[in-house]
Amino acid sequence: MHTFSERISSLKASAIREILKHTSNPEIIPFAAGNPAIESFPVEEMAKISAEIYRDMPVAALQYGISEGYTPLRDNTKARLKEKFNIGGENDDVIIVSGGQQGIELTCKVICNEKDTIICENPSFIGALNAFRSYNVNLFGVSLQEDGLDIEMLENALKTQKNAKMLYLIPTFQNPGGVTASLEKRKAVYSLAVKYNCFILEDNPYAELRFGGEDIPTLKSMDTEGIVIYCGSYSKVMSAGIRIGFVCANKDVISKLVVAKQVSDVHTNNFFQILISKYFEQYDFDLHIKKIQELYRNKCKLMTDGLDKYMADKTTYATPDGGLFIWCTFKEKTDVFEYAKKALEKKTAIVPGFAFMANENDYCNSFRLNFSTPTDEQIINGIKLLGEV
Amino acid sequence: MHTFSERISSLKASAIREILKHTSNPEIIPFAAGNPAIESFPVEEMAKISAEIYRDMPVAALQYGISEGYTPLRDNTKARLKEKFNIGGENDDVIIVSGGQQGIELTCKVICNEKDTIICENPSFIGALNAFRSYNVNLFGVSLQEDGLDIEMLENALKTQKNAKMLYLIPTFQNPGGVTASLEKRKAVYSLAVKYNCFILEDNPYAELRFGGEDIPTLKSMDTEGIVIYCGSYSKVMSAGIRIGFVCANKDVISKLVVAKQVSDVHTNNFFQILISKYFEQYDFDLHIKKIQELYRNKCKLMTDGLDKYMADKTTYATPDGGLFIWCTFKEKTDVFEYAKKALEKKTAIVPGFAFMANENDYCNSFRLNFSTPTDEQIINGIKLLGEV
Repeated sequence: MHTFSERISSLKASAIREILKHTSNPEIIPFAAGNPAIESFPVEEMAKISAEIYRDMPVAALQYGISEGYTPLRDNTKARLKEKFNIGGENDDVIIVSGGQQGIELTCKVICNEKDTIICENPSFIGALNAFRSYNVNLFGVSLQEDGLDIEMLENALKTQKNAKMLYLIPTFQNPGGVTASLEKRKAVYSLAVKYNCFILEDNPYAELRFGGEDIPTLKSMDTEGIVIYCGSYSKVMSAGIRIGFVCANKDVISKLVVAKQVSDVHTNNFFQILISKYFEQYDFDLHIKKIQELYRNKCKLMTDGLDKYMADKTTYATPDGGLFIWCTFKEKTDVFEYAKKALEKKTAIVPGFAFMANENDYCNSFRLNFSTPTDEQIINGIKLLGEV
Repeated sequence: MHTFSERISSLKASAIREILKHTSNPEIIPFAAGNPAIESFPVEEMAKISAEIYRDMPVAALQYGISEGYTPLRDNTKARLKEKFNIGGENDDVIIVSGGQQGIELTCKVICNEKDTIICENPSFIGALNAFRSYNVNLFGVSLQEDGLDIEMLENALKTQKNAKMLYLIPTFQNPGGVTASLEKRKAVYSLAVKYNCFILEDNPYAELRFGGEDIPTLKSMDTEGIVIYCGSYSKVMSAGIRIGFVCANKDVISKLVVAKQVSDVHTNNFFQILISKYFEQYDFDLHIKKIQELYRNKCKLMTDGLDKYMADKTTYATPDGGLFIWCTFKEKTDVFEYAKKALEKKTAIVPGFAFMANENDYCNSFRLNFSTPTDEQIINGIKLLGEV
C-alpha cells in the first residue's frame, strides 16, 4: 500500500476538532473561535483602494511578484515596526508572508532539522505547535505563569533538551493564556537564549491590540545578537481572509526565508499587498487601530463582567490587557473536555485547555474563551449559559 | 554560531540567478521569464466582480475561511476538470492552494520522507525541483524524448532507486522541454507506476493553453488506482499574482494535504477564491480561454518563424502545441552559459538548459525561450539578436 510521510502521519486528527467544527454553526455561541471582529476590517476603504488598483496598476497587482514581497509594503511594515515597537536595526530585514502562520511554518523549516527541539510556552498556540509537529520536531513545553515563562524550568530545559534550536514564544497577550510577560522575564529569557545559543521565534500577532496597561518592549527590540525572529500579521487589523503577514529578522535569516518562500508559493497575493500599502499611504492607521482597541476593550469588559457574575464561584482568570482571549481555570479539578461537551449542548463552544499543551495528553484544568468573534449579546448570554453548565 | 536546517542549506543560490534577475529590467527582452501575457487576465471583469464582493459579501471574503478552500470554487474546479479533461471520480476530491507551486510543495511534504527518491523528467521545472530539494529528497532525472520519457530508463530507475516514492511529471507542454507525452507513453508510465507502487504527481499548469494538435488524455484520467495527484492553476488564465491553484487527488491524499495546508498558511486568499468562482458563474470561461489560445498561437508562430529565419543554422527545436516555452538545442556542442551571457549583453535574456537538470552539474546543450512574456515586437527583434550572438 501507499504510505504518507512520517511527518504528516504524526499529525493526528485532534480531539477538539469535534468542538471546533461547530464554530461555523451560527446557532452556536462562538467562544471557541479566534476570528477578529468583522468591524475591525476597513471594508469601505479596501473597496475604494481596490478600484484604484484595477484602474491604475493592474499589471503590478495581477502579474507574478517577487518572493520578498511588494517593496512599498515591506517599507511600510519596517517603518511601523520601528516607530511603534522599536524593532529593526540595520542588520534586519522584512519578508511578506501569507499570514503569521506561514511565518511560523517557514521559520521552522529553515531553522530546525527533524528531531531538533523547540521549547514553547505551555499552553501555546495550536497552529504553531502543529506546524512544528509537521517537521518532526520535538516539542518541550515550559509552564506559563502570570508574568511569563517559569524561568527556572526554561533554563533546565535548555540545559537538558537535545538540540534545542529555538524558543517559540508569544510574550504579548499570549494565546491561549491571555498573559503578557513582564520586562524582567523578557530580559531573562533573552539572556538564556544567548547563553544557550538558541533562536527565539517571537510571535506577536496581537501587537496592535493593546487596550489596557502600558507597552512592554518586545524581545526583538532587545535583540543585539540577531537571534530573534519576529512574526507579525495584518490579519487582526486589516483582514484575516486575505492572508498577509510578515517576518522581521536578521538579514541572513530573511535570505533563507526568501528561498523557502519561493519554493512554498512563489510569493504572497500581490493585489492585497499593494492594497495594504496604499491603505498606509491614504488613511490614518493609528486612528483605525484606536477604534479596534476600543471595540475589544468593551468586549473584554463585557466578558469579565459576566465571568465575575456567573462563574466566580468555580473559575479564576487573569484580565488581559489586549489580544482576543481569556483563559479560565477551574478552582477544583474538573474534567474540562466533559464540561466543554456539556457547554456545547447549551449551544456555547469553548476550547478545553489540553488542546493547547505541547503534549496533548497532559492534563489541563483550564479552558479558553474568545471575545472578538461573538456579538455583545452572545457574550452576555454565553457566559450566563456557561455558569449554568 | 547559529546554523540553519540541512534541508535549506542544501538549496544553493543558482548560477542562473544572475541572468534571471535581469528579467525585471524593461530594457532586456524577457525570453527567460515565464510570465503569462497580461492580456490573458480578465482585468475589467475582475474589477467588476471585486466591487460586487465588497458590496454583497465582505464578511465571507475578508474573514478566515476553511483550509480545503471556498466550496463553490472547489465545485467549479471539479466541474471544469470533469468536463474538459475527464478528471475526477467518486473517490477524488479537490483542495484549493496558493498557486500550482504550493500544490507541488505540499504534495512532497505529505508523501516523501527525507532521502526518499522522486523521479522526474530531465530537464524539468526548477520551482518543483527546488521544492523537492527543500525536503532533502533525492532527485533522479529520466531523459525526456520528443514523445515523453525514456521508458526503459524509467523502469530501470524504478527498479534501482531506493525508496522511489513519486514520479513528478509535466506530460503536457512540458516546462522547459515544450514537448507533450504521447498517449502510448502515458499508458506505459502509468503501468510502471502501478507496478512499482509509486505515486505520480501530474503537474498540468498549461492544461488550458493548447493552441495546436489534439488533446491527449491526462494521466489522472487513466487513474483507476488512485495514485495520480493532479496539480493545476488559475495563474495562466486568470492572474498569476493572486496565487490560486488546485490539487485533485484521491480523498485520502486530499485529507493529508488539508492538514499540511492548515499548518502552512491556514487557507488561500478568500477574496480571490470567491472572485474566480463568480467569474465562472457570470462569464463564458471557454470563450476567454479561446482568446488566450489565439494569443499564444500567434506569439509562438512569430517565434518559430524567427527561429527558422535566424537560428536554423545552429539550433533545432520542436514546435510546441501549447504552453509558454520553446526548447532550442544547439546542433554542435556549445557552452550555453557563455552563449546566454553574450545574449544578455545584446539585451536578450534566455535560460541555459543546465538550470533545469535534476543534477545542475549535468551538461545540457539547450536553452529555453518563453514567448508569452515578450511583446510581438520583442519576439521579432530578440530572435534576430540571438541569431547574431
